[in-house]
Amino acid sequence: MPHFKHPLAVVETELIGERTRIWAFAHILPGARIGSDCNICDQTFIENDVVIGDRVTIKCGVQIWDGITLEDDVFVGPNATFTNDKFPRSRHHEKGIERTRVRAGASIGANATILPGITIGRSAVIGAGAVVTRDVPPFAIVTGNPGRISGYVGGVATEPSRPAPIPAVGGIYPSRVKGVAIYRMPLIEDLRGYLSAGENIPFPIKRHFLVFKVPSREVRGEHAHIELHQFLVCVHGECRIVVDDSEQREEFILNSPAIGLHIPPMVWALQYQYTPDAVLLVLASDIYKAEDYIRDYDEFCKLRNAAAGKG
Amino acid sequence: MPHFKHPLAVVETELIGERTRIWAFAHILPGARIGSDCNICDQTFIENDVVIGDRVTIKCGVQIWDGITLEDDVFVGPNATFTNDKFPRSRHHEKGIERTRVRAGASIGANATILPGITIGRSAVIGAGAVVTRDVPPFAIVTGNPGRISGYVGGVATEPSRPAPIPAVGGIYPSRVKGVAIYRMPLIEDLRGYLSAGENIPFPIKRHFLVFKVPSREVRGEHAHIELHQFLVCVHGECRIVVDDSEQREEFILNSPAIGLHIPPMVWALQYQYTPDAVLLVLASDIYKAEDYIRDYDEFCKLRNAAAGKG
Amino acid sequence: MPHFKHPLAVVETELIGERTRIWAFAHILPGARIGSDCNICDQTFIENDVVIGDRVTIKCGVQIWDGITLEDDVFVGPNATFTNDKFPRSRHHEKGIERTRVRAGASIGANATILPGITIGRSAVIGAGAVVTRDVPPFAIVTGNPGRISGYVGGVATEPSRPAPIPAVGGIYPSRVKGVAIYRMPLIEDLRGYLSAGENIPFPIKRHFLVFKVPSREVRGEHAHIELHQFLVCVHGECRIVVDDSEQREEFILNSPAIGLHIPPMVWALQYQYTPDAVLLVLASDIYKAEDYIRDYDEFCKLRNAAAGKG
Amino acid sequence: MPHFKHPLAVVETELIGERTRIWAFAHILPGARIGSDCNICDQTFIENDVVIGDRVTIKCGVQIWDGITLEDDVFVGPNATFTNDKFPRSRHHEKGIERTRVRAGASIGANATILPGITIGRSAVIGAGAVVTRDVPPFAIVTGNPGRISGYVGGVATEPSRPAPIPAVGGIYPSRVKGVAIYRMPLIEDLRGYLSAGENIPFPIKRHFLVFKVPSREVRGEHAHIELHQFLVCVHGECRIVVDDSEQREEFILNSPAIGLHIPPMVWALQYQYTPDAVLLVLASDIYKAEDYIRDYDEFCKLRNAAAGKG
Amino acid sequence: MPHFKHPLAVVETELIGERTRIWAFAHILPGARIGSDCNICDQTFIENDVVIGDRVTIKCGVQIWDGITLEDDVFVGPNATFTNDKFPRSRHHEKGIERTRVRAGASIGANATILPGITIGRSAVIGAGAVVTRDVPPFAIVTGNPGRISGYVGGVATEPSRPAPIPAVGGIYPSRVKGVAIYRMPLIEDLRGYLSAGENIPFPIKRHFLVFKVPSREVRGEHAHIELHQFLVCVHGECRIVVDDSEQREEFILNSPAIGLHIPPMVWALQYQYTPDAVLLVLASDIYKAEDYIRDYDEFCKLRNAAAGKG
Amino acid sequence: MPHFKHPLAVVETELIGERTRIWAFAHILPGARIGSDCNICDQTFIENDVVIGDRVTIKCGVQIWDGITLEDDVFVGPNATFTNDKFPRSRHHEKGIERTRVRAGASIGANATILPGITIGRSAVIGAGAVVTRDVPPFAIVTGNPGRISGYVGGVATEPSRPAPIPAVGGIYPSRVKGVAIYRMPLIEDLRGYLSAGENIPFPIKRHFLVFKVPSREVRGEHAHIELHQFLVCVHGECRIVVDDSEQREEFILNSPAIGLHIPPMVWALQYQYTPDAVLLVLASDIYKAEDYIRDYDEFCKLRNAAAGKG
Repeated sequence: MPHFKHPLAVVETELIGERTRIWAFAHILPGARIGSDCNICDQTFIENDVVIGDRVTIKCGVQIWDGITLEDDVFVGPNATFTNDKFPRSRHHEKGIERTRVRAGASIGANATILPGITIGRSAVIGAGAVVTRDVPPFAIVTGNPGRISGYVGGVATEPSRPAPIPAVGGIYPSRVKGVAIYRMPLIEDLRGYLSAGENIPFPIKRHFLVFKVPSREVRGEHAHIELHQFLVCVHGECRIVVDDSEQREEFILNSPAIGLHIPPMVWALQYQYTPDAVLLVLASDIYKAEDYIRDYDEFCKLRNAAAGKG
Repeated sequence: MPHFKHPLAVVETELIGERTRIWAFAHILPGARIGSDCNICDQTFIENDVVIGDRVTIKCGVQIWDGITLEDDVFVGPNATFTNDKFPRSRHHEKGIERTRVRAGASIGANATILPGITIGRSAVIGAGAVVTRDVPPFAIVTGNPGRISGYVGGVATEPSRPAPIPAVGGIYPSRVKGVAIYRMPLIEDLRGYLSAGENIPFPIKRHFLVFKVPSREVRGEHAHIELHQFLVCVHGECRIVVDDSEQREEFILNSPAIGLHIPPMVWALQYQYTPDAVLLVLASDIYKAEDYIRDYDEFCKLRNAAAGKG
Repeated sequence: MPHFKHPLAVVETELIGERTRIWAFAHILPGARIGSDCNICDQTFIENDVVIGDRVTIKCGVQIWDGITLEDDVFVGPNATFTNDKFPRSRHHEKGIERTRVRAGASIGANATILPGITIGRSAVIGAGAVVTRDVPPFAIVTGNPGRISGYVGGVATEPSRPAPIPAVGGIYPSRVKGVAIYRMPLIEDLRGYLSAGENIPFPIKRHFLVFKVPSREVRGEHAHIELHQFLVCVHGECRIVVDDSEQREEFILNSPAIGLHIPPMVWALQYQYTPDAVLLVLASDIYKAEDYIRDYDEFCKLRNAAAGKG
Repeated sequence: MPHFKHPLAVVETELIGERTRIWAFAHILPGARIGSDCNICDQTFIENDVVIGDRVTIKCGVQIWDGITLEDDVFVGPNATFTNDKFPRSRHHEKGIERTRVRAGASIGANATILPGITIGRSAVIGAGAVVTRDVPPFAIVTGNPGRISGYVGGVATEPSRPAPIPAVGGIYPSRVKGVAIYRMPLIEDLRGYLSAGENIPFPIKRHFLVFKVPSREVRGEHAHIELHQFLVCVHGECRIVVDDSEQREEFILNSPAIGLHIPPMVWALQYQYTPDAVLLVLASDIYKAEDYIRDYDEFCKLRNAAAGKG
Repeated sequence: MPHFKHPLAVVETELIGERTRIWAFAHILPGARIGSDCNICDQTFIENDVVIGDRVTIKCGVQIWDGITLEDDVFVGPNATFTNDKFPRSRHHEKGIERTRVRAGASIGANATILPGITIGRSAVIGAGAVVTRDVPPFAIVTGNPGRISGYVGGVATEPSRPAPIPAVGGIYPSRVKGVAIYRMPLIEDLRGYLSAGENIPFPIKRHFLVFKVPSREVRGEHAHIELHQFLVCVHGECRIVVDDSEQREEFILNSPAIGLHIPPMVWALQYQYTPDAVLLVLASDIYKAEDYIRDYDEFCKLRNAAAGKG
Repeated sequence: MPHFKHPLAVVETELIGERTRIWAFAHILPGARIGSDCNICDQTFIENDVVIGDRVTIKCGVQIWDGITLEDDVFVGPNATFTNDKFPRSRHHEKGIERTRVRAGASIGANATILPGITIGRSAVIGAGAVVTRDVPPFAIVTGNPGRISGYVGGVATEPSRPAPIPAVGGIYPSRVKGVAIYRMPLIEDLRGYLSAGENIPFPIKRHFLVFKVPSREVRGEHAHIELHQFLVCVHGECRIVVDDSEQREEFILNSPAIGLHIPPMVWALQYQYTPDAVLLVLASDIYKAEDYIRDYDEFCKLRNAAAGKG
């Protein structure tokens, strides 16, 4: 089944996939490449140097400028606005354009604004009205002006994650992310202050490090380790940790010296929403080895799948 | 006189009232119902499951999605953007839509964004560029991202209210809202601190209550009483009170233990812009009775009108 | 039995009561009047214009200057130091002296310093090393430099009071001071803040007043009422209340809008240790009447005793 | 060469300059006046009482309402939204419109919102997604909601300025703006505090003034002097100074009592981003003379050019 | 008339001036030198290496250790305690003693403690119970533990100074200290902040300096100038200035950019009680010249007297 | 050589050691036991139930009450004041006295006040004018009212310790206390915050604990371990550590995540002056074992000496 074009649409390209529908007052320039099963609504505009994957929805009032790629399954809400020039001046084109990539499965909310040169990660969600000024990690939810990460996509792709509750009773509690466990450690108070102790860390400790003074807008971590075990305690202030085994994802709020999080090898992890006074203690099973890091989420998923015999 | 349609508009519904004008590059789907005397500007898009009242203005670049109702006399500014899906994903429609209602006389500013599932109260005003994330009370003015109530519509519908000045001289001053009065009470200072006293409260006190730690984004009150008198003093910090007798509306800033506000029965009242340290003392003429509350503004207006023989 | 004088004491007065003992290296000038059963230790010095009651202890290294009166049962610790000139200059005597009175039963701690012109109230306690710069109420405990009231004497004269515990469960709890009761009122929390309500105040309310911005060093109250009932709530911050029926004394910490204190007529009460942000709400059973106040603690005790037929 | 009109555009005016291109689904009303070499993109709408200069770019989804003037070389990004009514109500037109002027060379970012009645100064830049609520000075960069000045355009029109680094070594350093110099003055620290001294101010001082408690959103200065020399020191807190000789522009952060800035006559200067605690000391070569001020930037440029024989 | 000795005093020196009285249980070692008209009360102890001037009062319970000098007219209150070893250990005498000097006319309050090695300036006053840990300037009043300067002696030697009131109306007001004047300068407020201006400084300005981050316990200034004029403005925070022409003394609180203080040559001045955020601006009539400073108060008085023909 | 007694002293005991001197106006009751080589100055008073060691100095104006023990080599400054009743009332003796012990080598400063029931540890120093309200650890220096530990005695008994400087360059630096070493660890800063890492801890880590919310007046630690190694990092805020091998003592300020302190077995350690926000991380070589602790300083010294063959 070929694509559909409303009689009042202007379509100048021929590179359009099957079953894609193009509605009234849309205008598509000759160079654009568009996948199948897309829905391109009224009053949209698509320039030449554009690649659009399969099953993409582009709602009314949206323009896709030269330099923009929308991968498969992307959703672009009404009046969401892309750009390709950081400092536009009328008739200054000599600079060349800045390219934008929206990774597979991501959604751009209604009336959001995407500054130029940005990558929006796989399955990320941009909130309605947000102004995105920097790259967005996979699965992150960004809201506000300027846009900040306010949460992560949960286990189900169409809902935000809710931080997992941490039991108040001492003990070790498994996460739904394989191998990860949360530790509620003893907390002793007397007149001379508080003492929290952990003596059952599930690996011998060879290194510790401390992360602090992290600006609240920043995300840290965003990698997995091939062999390293880590045990995280937020010893002052608060931060949030997202762990991900490529199938499940879970979020924890670390806000007490009595809470520890064991992250085994081959789990993707990141931290965000550091309070200004947060200090994160990491106890690690080995010294620093650059080659132990997996820094690309796609590669991480590939390795997990290979290990699981899915690849 | 029938409705007008520009030759380059696409109008698929027949349910359009008299004198309504529809301009170029607008597209209206077959199921939409549209009242009379509306103005639907260029490059707009109206879906099927939509009801639009009389005398509604929809400026350029606006889309009205399935599930949206605009009551009579609503104004929607250019590029203002509605939504009907809280967590959109391309081609996930199974969830069903969330409905939005814009009550009579309300205005949505240019380029504002309205999240799904929201009711915007009667005569409320959404500022240009605001992102509305929660219900908006009648007559409230919302600005910013995320949108916060920054004021209320004044006595004249096309102006924001200005808080009524409170005289510095001791005494009792009537509001333009019938029955309401502001009290400036004596304030005595000596080396051992301050003392403010009120001994002419115009009703016997049977109950007191204290409201505190109200998040600054919240509105409290939003009801009238059938028989209860109240006397309000903001004993620490500051909050704003809007009183409304269905014909007049007035706003007061309570920010001193020496200022009291008498609210008699059958006056609609709400408080907002609590500072984080605000404590509001309410002295009441009776114990708590659930049946004494009117919690719906429309019902309140009906009762006032009935009492005034207008109904 | 006459008084005793160590052979190495110099005693120039004859006005010394029975059984009083005066020890080595003490020196008493001719004009001093000293009661019976006193103990005046080594290396003390007592000037002429001095009156000392019965059963007074004056430890080593203390001087009692012209203008000082110690009533019955006073204790003066070692090296405690009195003064009678606010701004001493060598050989400037023209100003005249400032008089100090230590009321019956009071104790002055070791090495304390008492500035001139001060009255130390009945049974008050001055801590070791304190520097007393202002009058001290009956039963108050003063410590530090400058001296601040840090507590009150408890039910037993030789112990500090401990604030009475206030039950966490809603209800009305009697004090050991007759007629006084503490109220734990309901506290309701929701997303829009907190509400605390009281509707069983045991008297009709004719007046309210608010006390705030009290410097932390100040004591307020220090009176009883003949007929007035009061209901106290510390609606922001914290203060301490001492109530006293002339036989019992009890102390309460008011630090929540959900805690109320009913003080009936003929109870002596005072407040102290206001935090800087404290606001004390008083609901009263009558309008202000100057003639309803009893401002002298001795007179209050006399009236209570008369009422009890003890006079 | 005449202007170009896409067959699906609706153009009702005849006042269009040469080489201007008008694209599909654009609609221009009869009264509009449009210059030459403009580019008016798809799905735009231009009302009657509109003046547009030469070389103006208007991207898709933009409306230019009655009362709006765009001077030469203006850029308007996609979905940027103008307004002409501060408090819109459906079918209330009696108030008359508020006029907006965008001065030559300015750029409006994608999806920005411009409130009514505003002037955007020459070459200013409005960031993508910004909501502009007040006038914008020449060369200012405005971002956020509500929009605040976050920087100034630098020496090159297509880049933001970067504050000039101030050497840590004592000395006098010329700015690239002619006649302006930055002074690093000695700073002496001892146990009793800090002392910073300046004794080589390059003119005799006849007047000093202090600027303080400037709201952070405000811009001060915005004028040049005909004869007056000034020496600026931010003695507490921090502010930013932009100096401009009509050809060069440079920005300095003043944040130490040891940094001074000499501004000679005929240099345009403004200050912004005052911290709440900032105090700016100005030492001036003469007493206040109203006639020494040049308050209009265009006039300043004319006078500079005249002086340089460029007129 | 020779000195008087009570029969129970032990006096081993012969160097005692006329009319000096020594009372019971006092003990004076052979090396002490004591002036005339002194009063040495009961239970005092005076070591060998001690010099005591004329008209000195030493109240009961005081010891004057080796290394201590009390100049003429000094008053030492009861139980006031001197020291001569900073880190005493039993039977460690090898270090040698640290010397203390109490300058003429000074008073040491009752039970005060004076650490070793300190000079207490002319006519200074140590409050009762104070612990003095550092040198005390002439006329300063020190209280608390550790002792801080809390005021200065006023025009009359037996009273603390009260800061001179500063009129709220613009104008120039002479001090009672000759040549000094306080300026109330115009203060202009608008929506963009505050501006305070001074253009009638009574001398040409050649230098400015700024004093800031002064610890609150510190005194700065403490000198006079031979030729320099100064104009002081506390442009942020607050400090106190004492000016002194050797006959009169006056204190001012500088706490507004609108208040200036002109200090002409040959006026002794000091600043104290700087708030942590205080910034003091000094405009000076000449560049820095080390030889223009008079840093010794006695020398300053001599020069003033010589100039007045009194010397 | 027998003891010496001034003719005007009253000495009623016979238990006085050789070479002890007792001076004028001193009074010693029959039950007191006093060692040899003591110096008991004028105007002192010593009760019956008192034990005083050898080489003790008691300066003028001091009383030693029943229940007080001064061990060998104690120094008591002039007018220092002891007590033996927490809540004194005239002629209430039924409670019994509270005992005070001043351990060997300690010094009590002039005019200090010691509350009853306190032990002052070996070689501790009480500052002049201090008011001691709680036990004092060995070698601590206490000042102020109320007294707080402000430092520790240094390597030489007659000087306060100065915190050891910590080099800014990465590396491991030995302390003069045997086995202790300070680690300066790498600190990496980037735009996303700070990271400090330690991977050369000199023992395998089996346990970590965190100490926090320590009131600033508290001392923690005060023990040694028989076998445990510890590595301390103050990961937020600041605290001070004193380490002691019974011969040497050294103090460190820990105030950076990049500073670590290795404390091997058989080193006495304590922490004090915690800032309110301090969090101390301890990495330990073994799990918690109660029997590994040495909590008595004297016992610790004995064990060290035994190990060194000195015992």
